Amino acid sequence: MEYDKVINEIFFDLDFDASEGKVADYIPELAKVDPNKFGVHLCTLDGENFGLGNYNEAFSIQSISKVLSLTLAFKLDGDRIWQRVGVEPSGNPFNSLVQLEYEHGIPRNPLINSGAMVICDMLISKLENPKEDFLNFVRNIAGDPSINYNPKVAGSELEHGHRNVALANFMKSFNNITNSVEEVLDFYFCQCSLEMSCRQLAHTFLLYAAHGTLPETGKEIISVSKAKRINAIMQTCGFYDESGDFTFKVGLPGKSGVGGGITAVYPGSYSVSVWSPRLNKKGNSVLGIQFLEQLTTKTRASIF
Amino acid sequence: MEYDKVINEIFFDLDFDASEGKVADYIPELAKVDPNKFGVHLCTLDGENFGLGNYNEAFSIQSISKVLSLTLAFKLDGDRIWQRVGVEPSGNPFNSLVQLEYEHGIPRNPLINSGAMVICDMLISKLENPKEDFLNFVRNIAGDPSINYNPKVAGSELEHGHRNVALANFMKSFNNITNSVEEVLDFYFCQCSLEMSCRQLAHTFLLYAAHGTLPETGKEIISVSKAKRINAIMQTCGFYDESGDFTFKVGLPGKSGVGGGITAVYPGSYSVSVWSPRLNKKGNSVLGIQFLEQLTTKTRASIF
Amino acid sequence: MEYDKVINEIFFDLDFDASEGKVADYIPELAKVDPNKFGVHLCTLDGENFGLGNYNEAFSIQSISKVLSLTLAFKLDGDRIWQRVGVEPSGNPFNSLVQLEYEHGIPRNPLINSGAMVICDMLISKLENPKEDFLNFVRNIAGDPSINYNPKVAGSELEHGHRNVALANFMKSFNNITNSVEEVLDFYFCQCSLEMSCRQLAHTFLLYAAHGTLPETGKEIISVSKAKRINAIMQTCGFYDESGDFTFKVGLPGKSGVGGGITAVYPGSYSVSVWSPRLNKKGNSVLGIQFLEQLTTKTRASIF
Amino acid sequence: MEYDKVINEIFFDLDFDASEGKVADYIPELAKVDPNKFGVHLCTLDGENFGLGNYNEAFSIQSISKVLSLTLAFKLDGDRIWQRVGVEPSGNPFNSLVQLEYEHGIPRNPLINSGAMVICDMLISKLENPKEDFLNFVRNIAGDPSINYNPKVAGSELEHGHRNVALANFMKSFNNITNSVEEVLDFYFCQCSLEMSCRQLAHTFLLYAAHGTLPETGKEIISVSKAKRINAIMQTCGFYDESGDFTFKVGLPGKSGVGGGITAVYPGSYSVSVWSPRLNKKGNSVLGIQFLEQLTTKTRASIF
Repeated sequence: MEYDKVINEIFFDLDFDASEGKVADYIPELAKVDPNKFGVHLCTLDGENFGLGNYNEAFSIQSISKVLSLTLAFKLDGDRIWQRVGVEPSGNPFNSLVQLEYEHGIPRNPLINSGAMVICDMLISKLENPKEDFLNFVRNIAGDPSINYNPKVAGSELEHGHRNVALANFMKSFNNITNSVEEVLDFYFCQCSLEMSCRQLAHTFLLYAAHGTLPETGKEIISVSKAKRINAIMQTCGFYDESGDFTFKVGLPGKSGVGGGITAVYPGSYSVSVWSPRLNKKGNSVLGIQFLEQLTTKTRASIF
Repeated sequence: MEYDKVINEIFFDLDFDASEGKVADYIPELAKVDPNKFGVHLCTLDGENFGLGNYNEAFSIQSISKVLSLTLAFKLDGDRIWQRVGVEPSGNPFNSLVQLEYEHGIPRNPLINSGAMVICDMLISKLENPKEDFLNFVRNIAGDPSINYNPKVAGSELEHGHRNVALANFMKSFNNITNSVEEVLDFYFCQCSLEMSCRQLAHTFLLYAAHGTLPETGKEIISVSKAKRINAIMQTCGFYDESGDFTFKVGLPGKSGVGGGITAVYPGSYSVSVWSPRLNKKGNSVLGIQFLEQLTTKTRASIF
Repeated sequence: MEYDKVINEIFFDLDFDASEGKVADYIPELAKVDPNKFGVHLCTLDGENFGLGNYNEAFSIQSISKVLSLTLAFKLDGDRIWQRVGVEPSGNPFNSLVQLEYEHGIPRNPLINSGAMVICDMLISKLENPKEDFLNFVRNIAGDPSINYNPKVAGSELEHGHRNVALANFMKSFNNITNSVEEVLDFYFCQCSLEMSCRQLAHTFLLYAAHGTLPETGKEIISVSKAKRINAIMQTCGFYDESGDFTFKVGLPGKSGVGGGITAVYPGSYSVSVWSPRLNKKGNSVLGIQFLEQLTTKTRASIF
Repeated sequence: MEYDKVINEIFFDLDFDASEGKVADYIPELAKVDPNKFGVHLCTLDGENFGLGNYNEAFSIQSISKVLSLTLAFKLDGDRIWQRVGVEPSGNPFNSLVQLEYEHGIPRNPLINSGAMVICDMLISKLENPKEDFLNFVRNIAGDPSINYNPKVAGSELEHGHRNVALANFMKSFNNITNSVEEVLDFYFCQCSLEMSCRQLAHTFLLYAAHGTLPETGKEIISVSKAKRINAIMQTCGFYDESGDFTFKVGLPGKSGVGGGITAVYPGSYSVSVWSPRLNKKGNSVLGIQFLEQLTTKTRASIF
């Protein structure tokens, strides 16, 4: 498959002037980003790489980090984690408290905010130095020691994230947070502040295309079975209340973040990351989804 | 892949004595079925066939029919159908009215009861003789003119389906049912009463493994793109509020019915149907899910 | 108290030109009414009467009839009725199915549609000729044999009341309707089609001001305790999701209908009915509420 | 009316041995109270007083304090307060976040936790020394400078009240809390920790029976109109999701607290407080409600 040709084609066909969508502005640090940034990077298990636009520029990966923390918790704790978080799509906006109330503090899945907080709580109980250990885990998968948190973004979230503070306290009232709410939120916002470029993200997520193994060294990070299950969760839960639509249009497992990034994987074949900060009403990158829809249509590559 | 060996292995390992789950009893006709029935049939695009147990015995396919009526409506009306029904998982029990109220009468997807009623309404507006035309459509895909409705089951549903009558009237109040509620429900219950064996079901669903084409004749029923999209919807919405769990455990697109049937497809490879009438609390066959989980684990075949 | 003076004053101060609110148009028969009609009638336990405007013209009392059917069922069945319907305000729009689902088919109170249907179901089981017997009960309280149903309005509701059909079927699915849905709805819509003038309504509701006794004859229709309890229910549940607001502003037990009527009682003192067809978003008469707010402010008569 | 005789009668008829209900145990300080305590005090506008049992022993008035803080905010800010809090019953358990989400951070009424927090936020903006000033306001109405907060109880709530922390942060995310969440919660928990005896409570609430005036001095604290409106809110919202039931059974405006206290007023006549720590599932005192139901039945005194 000549991915470079296809990616070029789509890139030049995209309507960058269309003003649809707006940059996340609930925290000042995110609102500052240039809405016209656009990058894409695809890398295959065969070692091929294709980047276009601002593919080498780091941005705030935000909720995409939830897949990485889930991976570490699943690796460390195994199937026990499913006693405290489900694997069902949420069927509600990503920050909803309603579902949580009806389900007694058990989040629907680990890729919504509440679920990711429970995962953070598990990691805090398990890791000596949660922030450092998690960062090293990510750097190791990415093969890139330069990846880092952005303390300004993390601090800004802490200051403005009243709804997330509400979520964490609510779960604490159901005893589904075992450490202090402050510690959990501090780690959660820190993890969301991770910065990566499309190139770094695509390389990191090759892990899920390669069924749990680092393609360059052949080292197993998680088992084949665990990698499949994480892909399955990305498929049904990766895009908040737009997960069905992404599956319908793009047909690949993936995860989005309010920084405008989307990463998707074709198991056994490739990993691709797109970045465009303008978001639709459901919090997902408008051009990112359009690009990926074109990609799977033109390459006829879909898991379905 | 030696499917016959694997299927035999799983079959002999299954714990048939475990009493978990109970037969659907909300209508007398369904309650009569022997809870110990068990059948499985797998057929590949290469023309191979493997059946075990009561794989040749017809049962009530119930909600599995929703995939077939969706297919016909999608074929006839194209993307216009998505103006009246969504593609998002429901995140709620399959018969919930709550979601429908908050979303102004637009069902979340075509594989829950409300969504399938809207599809029925579309077909009534489009077909000369809805019941006959739909039956012929199914017989044609199945390559089997003996397939039929069971009028007793359909009649029994009409008599006891007060919640479905409520659903249809509720959508009518939002103007999302255009024909008379009686006509829509009559067609809906009729379609649910379709009877097929595991063998017939697996053959019928080869269509979705074959990307929209009848494998034996090469005739296109729906386009590649439409077939992929229907598979995507089965993946995220095929098992009511257990769709995420089925994707997590089995990793294939599929659909269940309260008659105890489950059918799943591996795009590009095979179609498989299982039948066991004992249902879990979410309305899906207990042994059916167990069987399919073992199948994708042992064959290492999952789209993820 | 010189009620005539106060009523005259308020009447001439009301801003009839303000275009706020609109006539109920969900059924054609109700939409036909002249939006500028306005009538008021107050009668005291001492036998005084004050009418102004179109106080002698019959209109569709709609949901106000729910108080009368509740009274008959409470008289016939006593406290057993509270096993199938609650006494709590609904906290939701009057036609909501959500609450009903969470509370397993038990309506919150007898003054919302679902609750009144359960009351109808009880009366059908108890009365030989439900429609005739209920009509006679009302005529007897009103002391006026000319009061009647409007079959055109009842028929129009049956044809357009899909949401009410949904409600009844939904409760039937929870076994909280014991007769046939058709029979219950037929009686329900018939009862809603009752027509009375402000004068007739005010006379009828003197019963609740007189603690259950017909003031002219001294005959007890219901016990003091039952009358108080019905007043209590009107206080907390009489205005759908605006009950708290009505209590806050007017401070008297009362009941509204989408025909634009409102009737209120001051226990031990008087009964008052207002009619103005323009409704606010919550389904209550705009000028009706304004008039009554002025009345209790100017007369300083409030139960609080 | 010989209240002393009636109160004695009811007191000796009450079934104190019935073990129904349990003491609030969500904070250790409240769990310590002796479940068998029982006190009642009634005082009339004529200056009569009747106390029985532990009527002179101070207990944690908890949510009863919400009426007092509402009174101060209403006095200071007038009708502007209704822009940030409603007057409708909640139709949901008292600590529910669901309603708040659907209504964009505007609490249903000032007598549920969320509403009382918004009132606290208003008072903080208005008062120089919120805690001292509020305490002095209460002592002044009660005519008793010995009334005080219990810092142990307040501290215990801060430590265990995760759900309340969630509520406050949630409203902050809707911009309906203007001061810091910490300050609001600190004041809120402090106010809930007020301790009074039945005698003190009954005396304090004479204010609402006396239409806003201190009966002994004739000094107006709030206007007649404001007093009536607060009574109206107590009537429809004073008992969480049991408000309709209390109105139905007792027929007087009132307010309960999880400390086991209930206070009720008969406008123009008397004020009565009961204390019994065993609570029903809706958080209201079992014996307290029974006592008041008997009281209004035997004295035939109800506003309806």
